[in-house]
Amino acid sequence: MKPFHRLISFEEAKKIIMENTKEIERIEEVDILEAVERVLAIDIHATFNVPGFKRAAMDGYAVKAEDTFNASLTNPKKLKLVGKIFAGEKSDKRIGEGECMQIATGAALPQGSDAVVMVEDTERHGNYIAIHKPVYPGANVSQPDEDIKKGCKILGKGEILNPPKIGVLAALGIRKVKVYEKPKVEIFPTGKEVVELGKRLEEGKIYDINSYTLASLLKKAGSEARINKIVDDDKKDIEEAIEKAKNADYVIFSGGSSVGEKDILADVIEKKGKLLFHGIAVKPGKPTICGVIGNAIVLGMPGYPTSCLTNAYVLLLPSIKKMARLPFEIKRQEVTLAKSIASTIGRYQIYPVKVKEGKAYPAFKESGAITSMSMADGYIEIPANVEFIEEGSKVIVTYF
Amino acid sequence: MKPFHRLISFEEAKKIIMENTKEIERIEEVDILEAVERVLAIDIHATFNVPGFKRAAMDGYAVKAEDTFNASLTNPKKLKLVGKIFAGEKSDKRIGEGECMQIATGAALPQGSDAVVMVEDTERHGNYIAIHKPVYPGANVSQPDEDIKKGCKILGKGEILNPPKIGVLAALGIRKVKVYEKPKVEIFPTGKEVVELGKRLEEGKIYDINSYTLASLLKKAGSEARINKIVDDDKKDIEEAIEKAKNADYVIFSGGSSVGEKDILADVIEKKGKLLFHGIAVKPGKPTICGVIGNAIVLGMPGYPTSCLTNAYVLLLPSIKKMARLPFEIKRQEVTLAKSIASTIGRYQIYPVKVKEGKAYPAFKESGAITSMSMADGYIEIPANVEFIEEGSKVIVTYF
Repeated sequence: MKPFHRLISFEEAKKIIMENTKEIERIEEVDILEAVERVLAIDIHATFNVPGFKRAAMDGYAVKAEDTFNASLTNPKKLKLVGKIFAGEKSDKRIGEGECMQIATGAALPQGSDAVVMVEDTERHGNYIAIHKPVYPGANVSQPDEDIKKGCKILGKGEILNPPKIGVLAALGIRKVKVYEKPKVEIFPTGKEVVELGKRLEEGKIYDINSYTLASLLKKAGSEARINKIVDDDKKDIEEAIEKAKNADYVIFSGGSSVGEKDILADVIEKKGKLLFHGIAVKPGKPTICGVIGNAIVLGMPGYPTSCLTNAYVLLLPSIKKMARLPFEIKRQEVTLAKSIASTIGRYQIYPVKVKEGKAYPAFKESGAITSMSMADGYIEIPANVEFIEEGSKVIVTYF
Repeated sequence: MKPFHRLISFEEAKKIIMENTKEIERIEEVDILEAVERVLAIDIHATFNVPGFKRAAMDGYAVKAEDTFNASLTNPKKLKLVGKIFAGEKSDKRIGEGECMQIATGAALPQGSDAVVMVEDTERHGNYIAIHKPVYPGANVSQPDEDIKKGCKILGKGEILNPPKIGVLAALGIRKVKVYEKPKVEIFPTGKEVVELGKRLEEGKIYDINSYTLASLLKKAGSEARINKIVDDDKKDIEEAIEKAKNADYVIFSGGSSVGEKDILADVIEKKGKLLFHGIAVKPGKPTICGVIGNAIVLGMPGYPTSCLTNAYVLLLPSIKKMARLPFEIKRQEVTLAKSIASTIGRYQIYPVKVKEGKAYPAFKESGAITSMSMADGYIEIPANVEFIEEGSKVIVTYF
């Protein structure tokens, strides 16, 4: 067993991972119903005007505006009702002087008319409509390009498709849209102590936790994660896993990066690509390996569930979001620390806390315990040069 | 055409919808890999201890603690190395007095030993290990139930499954988990002016926007939305649609709730169930109908895209989240208004804004324009009794 040669700082580790993270360039076409929260890969230019025709912006009567000038409640103008138009219909009839046509919101304005009088400002007398208020030309009328103008760039490459933007695509009749692919992550659980879910648990063994916490986190973060069969901490098996994952954007070994004799991932990375670091001055999560092989970032995560998952939150998540071209948005809140926390000088600490009534309670059990995190609401980060945070201090909680 | 009888206030409308929103009781079983962000429908009790055995919490040497008492750097205790144990292995050998065994983090502690000396506090000399520091019994050893204790409630009904909680399920070997079903929403686009995507757009018609904005929003909010074929604003067709959707939790008609002659949804609701309100003093979004038929809430949304979508954000979204048993979390930010906004007294206004460098710029075009929202980042809400917000005022933006 050899100790780590040199632990790099948490900040340095994060910087190295981010510098080696490239934004996805691959594009795929998806149905707009599947496109919400995806990243647009092309500019969208309007190929026609929307709505495409002059339409009534109100329920009322299509008129020649000048026929209404001087109308008032005491001295209404009477116009002859010559028809009605519902939304989605188009009238062939032309409105002449002194005439009007009943029109519904959204319906195409009939020829000859240039304004709509709101129904509230009228009164019907048989085949005549009394107009109580004058309107100017264009009143209560939407122009053909009022929403979207033909030829204009209406959405831009890199925009995240939210519901209103999906609406713009629908308005232009676009059913399928080009978006950037989601990052592809291959997860390889490692270690003889790990047992696949569904198999019998023998003494000395534990179920594979890390593959599921990682895959859940990655799914939530907008990437595609695949859990592979358990790999032995063995040079040949690890080389085969890397070969199998060669089209991935990220390859994660969960476990098998401690200093034990069997830890050979670093050697394989050095042989096949470039080792970026091995060991971080962070607690928990020290035995973490990072390298690059081909186009993929290779991460060797600590085997302990809490170590693995806190590392995933602080190091993997920002990188995956950058890769996916998504903003790194996390829920943070300033709260008061309910109990003092001692930290290890020289190591950046990720500390799980439970938040109750605006106060953060320490929730850490030990780095092997998944319940350290499942019973917490989030974590606080303690810089390497801080060894004690006093009860009552203000701390920032990042929620899981 | 008849005007609305009585507009209810926005606050009243929201209260009525929320009071009529029931939390989903239906349960389904899903793979834990699909369970992130789902709501647990049962309590989970541990059926066994995790880790289930005493294990080394550090790489080092398993020892009898009393053999290390009085050890120091200048006067180390020498122990005979009698074997090694990797994680996942179990040694049949028993440690005797004056003996030790090399052990990896996570490996089961061999019989006879009660502590682990960290590798950093030792030095190897052939078959003997020099111990530089004493350890107490239990040092660097995790107990069998240290993470999860058999019989304990480890996750509770109603909890939202985040990655650490998925990890707890994996630790217990649980592959499938019972969660509450997602709310089921049936969307019926209505109106003769609306054309299905993929079909030719004739004059006077527009593509169906609302079905897509609604479905995207609902999907993002954790519910299942299905877009049905376009329904005519016709009593028989609307009745058929409601019949078809009888197992849904929500039935939404997008369009066809204005005061035009063809608006008959309210009549159908009154005939088949209970009409809760028709018309809200909100801008945009006034012509909104809400009722209950059987177990479903029926919403008649305004046909105009902005009206429909702002209503969906302020009225539908909180209701759907409650139904799904999810918290109503939205991204909000206080910013400075860059330009004054005039509002309509007596109507609660939802106003789209674009946020640039901490300032909110009005982005409203007209309620027919989807670009009012696609070019905005979010909206501000203006109470009914406010008619003017001055440039420089602080406003709260809710992001789309």
